[in-house]
Amino acid sequence: MNIHELIQELREPATSKIVFLVADGLGGLPLEKGGKTELETAATPNFDALARDGVVGLSTPVLPGIAPGSGPGHLALFGYDPLQYRIGRGILEALGINFAVGPKDVAIRGNFCTLGPDGKITDRRAGRPTNEKNAAAVARLRTIKIPGVELFVEPVREHRFVLVIRGDGLGDAVNDTDPQAVGVAPLKAEGADPASAKTAAVVNEFLARAVEVLAAEAPTNGATLRGFARMPKIATFEGVYGLKAAAIAVYPMYKGLARLVGMDILDPGATLQGQVDTLKAAWKDHDFFFLHYKYTDSTGEDGNFPAKVQMIEKLDAVIPQIRALNPDVFIVTGDHSTPSKMKSHSWHPVPTILAADTCRPDGVAEFGEAACLRGGLGQFQAVHLMLMAMAHAGRLGKYGA
Amino acid sequence: MNIHELIQELREPATSKIVFLVADGLGGLPLEKGGKTELETAATPNFDALARDGVVGLSTPVLPGIAPGSGPGHLALFGYDPLQYRIGRGILEALGINFAVGPKDVAIRGNFCTLGPDGKITDRRAGRPTNEKNAAAVARLRTIKIPGVELFVEPVREHRFVLVIRGDGLGDAVNDTDPQAVGVAPLKAEGADPASAKTAAVVNEFLARAVEVLAAEAPTNGATLRGFARMPKIATFEGVYGLKAAAIAVYPMYKGLARLVGMDILDPGATLQGQVDTLKAAWKDHDFFFLHYKYTDSTGEDGNFPAKVQMIEKLDAVIPQIRALNPDVFIVTGDHSTPSKMKSHSWHPVPTILAADTCRPDGVAEFGEAACLRGGLGQFQAVHLMLMAMAHAGRLGKYGA
Repeated sequence: MNIHELIQELREPATSKIVFLVADGLGGLPLEKGGKTELETAATPNFDALARDGVVGLSTPVLPGIAPGSGPGHLALFGYDPLQYRIGRGILEALGINFAVGPKDVAIRGNFCTLGPDGKITDRRAGRPTNEKNAAAVARLRTIKIPGVELFVEPVREHRFVLVIRGDGLGDAVNDTDPQAVGVAPLKAEGADPASAKTAAVVNEFLARAVEVLAAEAPTNGATLRGFARMPKIATFEGVYGLKAAAIAVYPMYKGLARLVGMDILDPGATLQGQVDTLKAAWKDHDFFFLHYKYTDSTGEDGNFPAKVQMIEKLDAVIPQIRALNPDVFIVTGDHSTPSKMKSHSWHPVPTILAADTCRPDGVAEFGEAACLRGGLGQFQAVHLMLMAMAHAGRLGKYGA
Repeated sequence: MNIHELIQELREPATSKIVFLVADGLGGLPLEKGGKTELETAATPNFDALARDGVVGLSTPVLPGIAPGSGPGHLALFGYDPLQYRIGRGILEALGINFAVGPKDVAIRGNFCTLGPDGKITDRRAGRPTNEKNAAAVARLRTIKIPGVELFVEPVREHRFVLVIRGDGLGDAVNDTDPQAVGVAPLKAEGADPASAKTAAVVNEFLARAVEVLAAEAPTNGATLRGFARMPKIATFEGVYGLKAAAIAVYPMYKGLARLVGMDILDPGATLQGQVDTLKAAWKDHDFFFLHYKYTDSTGEDGNFPAKVQMIEKLDAVIPQIRALNPDVFIVTGDHSTPSKMKSHSWHPVPTILAADTCRPDGVAEFGEAACLRGGLGQFQAVHLMLMAMAHAGRLGKYGA
């Protein structure tokens, strides 16, 4: 029996509320031997109080040693085995801009680039065009028609857009045309099987036509495509857990991940306070709240240790507003670690708090990587965290007689 | 390769003795924030000494967040994956009263109830009849004959009996007829497939006849049926581990669970000292001893914190008698937690001691939930505990060259 079937069998109706705060890339590393991590350096009186009132531990997103992308990191937190469900980047981008991806679609992430007179890439991001410039270039691409398929081109931001190809018998086993380098031409698309070859043929024609229609938009005069992906078959969050879930995220990819499992996507604007206000407004109408906080990851990716510390402290400051809502279960975790020292996602387990009335005291009263090693949650698999959330929320009955 | 096959491949003959003491529902919670659990409150000098001499840890019976019934909880401790083997309540009840369930049997738990003149239930337990009254009612039910099947009706205690239907092609996918409420009539049995429909037809006739023959026994004048179950296919304990095992339990369900895996069921009477005396008497003739202690669970279910503390202390007091037998491996654990605060089984991991000469010291010298967080067994899956028992008993050879 898989875990989703088990939950469907055991789940019980309840009115309890679960808050799931994901601080992206939360875990870190000290810059120097014997030093403290970003989280340990930050002054976090509110996280510390939450840790004292709940249990803490360390989450392994996929497997020990595996650094996950945002997709698998979040799927695991939502309780979907990230080794079973693989979500292509194109699907995430399309969902993130609220595009209704259908069963006949292949979704692809597009990047505008600058091509020299010899057709070689001189800037992989076309000088990061303004959103207006992006929209103008997208309008040009929309003039392209290819017989036998429908094409949808949607702007994202700066140099990014989404291409969706809709048609019968299209595969998604197609290589990225982005060569990830300048001074070389974009790559030809090739399909690994007949269905994907059909997609590749469409794409190659699309990119050839793109060079023609974008000529007048230089330096936004070329495009590369990445992350060809069809929609995966995945059970909805409400179908599995019986929870009416709201996603309160600022960035498109995280909205996309939440949409993938059927959460309601709320629009909190661009600020953390906007997210908290949205949470308050949505409180009555939902059971589960996924709050996504991006800046612990982006500062880590930038290698900016003090900025990551500051972003953690900024998040800590809103915790009392969330606790004032009296959630039955309040979880603080991350989808992976992003140590400033490494400037990248890493495999290090992610510090986690679970606070609820039925927590068994573990004696830990601070939130930090070393402290979490002594916590009651132990070192656990991220995919099991939703089981604990459901149990502490009084939403799971007994298994077996 | 599954774990049982691995054990069968690696196991080696030995004369070592393993004692497996299961304090039902052992784990608990503090009543107040920052307080102590039942086990931490109890004065347990003998458990503490055992913890000091061995290693401790916390057992997860099924999965994080899953509160197991006694069936899955014990199967996991015996080393059988509780998500793979599912044991119906009817089978547990039948095994518990020493009924030899066969391959053509469907076993069902019966409850005597009181029916009003309108056929609706006025008392789901028929006023908890005496065992004599139960026997008289069972004698009436035994007069019922139904062509094509053999019927066996056996008393359990108070309002409880077991019905076993023996015949060809009987299924067990039948709903409970107990509506779990008063003021309504018992439910009709229905089968989810043709074989189960055959069982349902027998049962509906049986229950109609029961009302006739029980009329003179009011208030024990009706019956409901629950937990329809056939015998699962399960390897014996001796077949897997090569251990001659004795079960020393007072309550029927735990005898039933032990019988399910083929242990010898000893009769210790109704007292803890009787169990210890039975252990001593059986010492020479067995390799493995499953002692079941019920009262840590029943006091927890009652929500009686001080009584649970007292029952833990009572169990602690007999530990020296068991240690005097010099078991090679002495394990103390539980099948699940039953916090008095929750008055129910819970998902919280279960404090566990394993004491043997080959234990690596972990520095823990007390038995309690928080102390076990720092123990050498870590947080482990219950289904792996028998591997540790076998290893410390010198009964497992090396895996691979």
